[in-house]
Amino acid sequence: MASVSGRDDPEQRLSRWEARTDWAMTSLAVAFLGTYAWQVLGAGSSPRLHGVLEVALWVIWAVFAAEYAVRFSLARNKGRFVWRHLFDLLAVALPMVRQLRALRLVTVFKVLNKRLGADFRGRIGVYVAGTTALVVFCAALAVYDAERRSPDATITGFGDALWWTMTTISTVGYGDRYPVTPEGRLVAVSLMVGGIALLGVVTGVIASWFVEKISGVEESIEETTRAEVAALRAEVAALREVLAEAALRRGPPGPG
Amino acid sequence: MASVSGRDDPEQRLSRWEARTDWAMTSLAVAFLGTYAWQVLGAGSSPRLHGVLEVALWVIWAVFAAEYAVRFSLARNKGRFVWRHLFDLLAVALPMVRQLRALRLVTVFKVLNKRLGADFRGRIGVYVAGTTALVVFCAALAVYDAERRSPDATITGFGDALWWTMTTISTVGYGDRYPVTPEGRLVAVSLMVGGIALLGVVTGVIASWFVEKISGVEESIEETTRAEVAALRAEVAALREVLAEAALRRGPPGPG
Amino acid sequence: MASVSGRDDPEQRLSRWEARTDWAMTSLAVAFLGTYAWQVLGAGSSPRLHGVLEVALWVIWAVFAAEYAVRFSLARNKGRFVWRHLFDLLAVALPMVRQLRALRLVTVFKVLNKRLGADFRGRIGVYVAGTTALVVFCAALAVYDAERRSPDATITGFGDALWWTMTTISTVGYGDRYPVTPEGRLVAVSLMVGGIALLGVVTGVIASWFVEKISGVEESIEETTRAEVAALRAEVAALREVLAEAALRRGPPGPG
Amino acid sequence: MASVSGRDDPEQRLSRWEARTDWAMTSLAVAFLGTYAWQVLGAGSSPRLHGVLEVALWVIWAVFAAEYAVRFSLARNKGRFVWRHLFDLLAVALPMVRQLRALRLVTVFKVLNKRLGADFRGRIGVYVAGTTALVVFCAALAVYDAERRSPDATITGFGDALWWTMTTISTVGYGDRYPVTPEGRLVAVSLMVGGIALLGVVTGVIASWFVEKISGVEESIEETTRAEVAALRAEVAALREVLAEAALRRGPPGPG
Repeated sequence: MASVSGRDDPEQRLSRWEARTDWAMTSLAVAFLGTYAWQVLGAGSSPRLHGVLEVALWVIWAVFAAEYAVRFSLARNKGRFVWRHLFDLLAVALPMVRQLRALRLVTVFKVLNKRLGADFRGRIGVYVAGTTALVVFCAALAVYDAERRSPDATITGFGDALWWTMTTISTVGYGDRYPVTPEGRLVAVSLMVGGIALLGVVTGVIASWFVEKISGVEESIEETTRAEVAALRAEVAALREVLAEAALRRGPPGPG
Repeated sequence: MASVSGRDDPEQRLSRWEARTDWAMTSLAVAFLGTYAWQVLGAGSSPRLHGVLEVALWVIWAVFAAEYAVRFSLARNKGRFVWRHLFDLLAVALPMVRQLRALRLVTVFKVLNKRLGADFRGRIGVYVAGTTALVVFCAALAVYDAERRSPDATITGFGDALWWTMTTISTVGYGDRYPVTPEGRLVAVSLMVGGIALLGVVTGVIASWFVEKISGVEESIEETTRAEVAALRAEVAALREVLAEAALRRGPPGPG
Repeated sequence: MASVSGRDDPEQRLSRWEARTDWAMTSLAVAFLGTYAWQVLGAGSSPRLHGVLEVALWVIWAVFAAEYAVRFSLARNKGRFVWRHLFDLLAVALPMVRQLRALRLVTVFKVLNKRLGADFRGRIGVYVAGTTALVVFCAALAVYDAERRSPDATITGFGDALWWTMTTISTVGYGDRYPVTPEGRLVAVSLMVGGIALLGVVTGVIASWFVEKISGVEESIEETTRAEVAALRAEVAALREVLAEAALRRGPPGPG
Repeated sequence: MASVSGRDDPEQRLSRWEARTDWAMTSLAVAFLGTYAWQVLGAGSSPRLHGVLEVALWVIWAVFAAEYAVRFSLARNKGRFVWRHLFDLLAVALPMVRQLRALRLVTVFKVLNKRLGADFRGRIGVYVAGTTALVVFCAALAVYDAERRSPDATITGFGDALWWTMTTISTVGYGDRYPVTPEGRLVAVSLMVGGIALLGVVTGVIASWFVEKISGVEESIEETTRAEVAALRAEVAALREVLAEAALRRGPPGPG
């Protein structure tokens, strides 16, 4: 697996770079979410604070863009790098769509993913719950930010936005609140995709648990076969014993 | 499995305590639901009866709190106990959120869970149906209690509340009725989570049934392998017979 | 399997009775649906025709009730019979709830189930599609019958009823149409349960198909093991050949 | 598998025909979608352009019909051909239902299906995403075309149509927009079926991935059994060696 290549192998340098900047970029994503939430929720009345936070968001965007550029230059296979980090590219290339910025937070999930692994159902449960909570919070922020200045809006407070987010990701969709702006609808479509994925993961975990119960029975059958093979081996060993003894009785090399 | 520990082992004392109080706490939870339902549905007009039932609910809360305190003091690993009984802690620690009280009923499901086990699909069916019915009833009570005094409420009767609960847990969500108060929306979010879990369990049971049909075919292949190993064993046994006979013919120990 | 019991064994007589009346009862259920549909859709204007069809529906109900009574008297284990045919009992015991009558059609599905079996995915597909179509038609009839005389009704035509039924069983639930009467809501709840089951079955079939693809790989490993066992058996047979030849060379019974 | 039949075998000629016309028919389907989209979205104001595009759509329909006729004449088992290409027949036989024409695009998916195969989850992901995007676009076109001339319509622009399509296929169904014409509702029902299938496929892929993780464990058990059988075979081979050596020592054919 580990390619034993020279010091200047770009792929190795990319991995080293990513390992070193992992925590820094995660902290930056958290800072971005905090600043964005502050701007959306708290700075509506003061245009000056709003402006300061706007600058902070652009600075964070610039750091993300620079980091992407460094990683791109380090990657050997440029095409594969772009394809595998398509989401990072979108988050960097579309800074004018405010609502997409919050999605940059997925870097947090990536780091979490590395720390937790996907091997055990318990850990998947923690991961799914955490991801869902973060997506719900980001989506509520984004949709509130998009809708609040629209005259026809039905989502007029952050509480409404959270409520609407929950009805959407669970695919309930009462329709008492719904986005009317294109940006709000974009957030909604992302949430619907997330809702389908959430249902799929929850069902998949439960189904695999039931299937495991069944394949437990199957394993015991397998166990029986293995026991039978072991018994057979003992039988053959005994056979060799008999033959060896017979050979011994017939004495050392020489006619019988 | 059974730890052969001394008389004063706290974990053992905790288990004994839980086994002894199981039925009492379940009955208490049923009494709580009955009293709560009576207060919500029947005592709207009489403030005195309402007050009496309120006192009864607080007394039941006190018994639950005392029982939690005893169990906490008996637990050896306090941290693990709190984590594993997180729901009990919430039900005890938040007595002012009326809507959460009804959720204390899950103790009934826990006892049912012990009695039924999760080994057979039929039993899972009974368990899922029972849990769903109880959750629907509790949620309808809670949402009716939360909404009925709100001027904008669309859920204005217990029938409406039951109907809304069904449209929510099935993720249909017509939107002809929906909660408008924060407490009502909290109940709704719990129901949505429950609805996703319900879909997951129903699908998981059905999927595992189909997979079992397939793995039945697989098992018969496994059966063939086992039959082959058994035949092989008989062959080797016959071989030993031949050898033993040959050794016998060559006479007792002594040169041939 | 086949119990070789005497001529008067009640269980055997029950099976014979059911085999003989299967097609007759299915035809009767189809006749019931036809009559009910005619009454709901076509006889709104003529009170006389409505009355005639009402009598026909009651006659069919009487035949179903009589058939249930005969089967009950033939059953040896009465309790188990009632439990296993709970749906038949409900359909017979609640003739005053008009909407439940249409559900008697499930006898058609039972017969279909016997004819098709549940062994092959293709057949499950036909069965699911057929059941869904029939449930949608019956539910649309029932909800239209329940709602059309209500002043607040939003479901005012059979086309609306069919449309509402589709939005409900798919759990989409726009909320442009929804039932307002208790009977209509009962139909809706049945449809929601059906919708969850439908999603479960569709997902289960697809998931089992994907799992089969994987277990196909597993089977080929199993195949390798079997081939190895067969080779081992050939080896042992060759061994016996060698021994038999050696024994032959050493001549007929007699000292070496 | 490959039937070595003569030059005039119709089935072979059908396969050759399909292989040769595959790309041409796919391009034609793309052209159909483009023309249809142009007519629906861009040619509302100019009746002349509308007429020209209408003629183009009918010409494409005629080519599809002719291609179906050729394939039908080449098929040996006519009944099986009709059953297996039921969708093609519907697309050809119902040219007056405008909304069904867009569905002819499935020929694109068929070709994609052949190119990609269904063996690997990654490819299934690409296939599901592509199919969903195409279905959403076609359905939005069709519903906009059906609804825009209705006085009660709530879907009044192509953006609204896309938004409504997303809320429907994800089974969220807010109800802020919904079709009111029979054609629009037909499109909606197709989308609901598609939404259920989409949920099923997404869940199936995820569930099979989790199950694979488990059956990975199972495979390693299988591996152990195979290793044991291999060891046993080596044991038997050693045994034969011993016997052969003993036979050699006892000398060439002749009494011992």
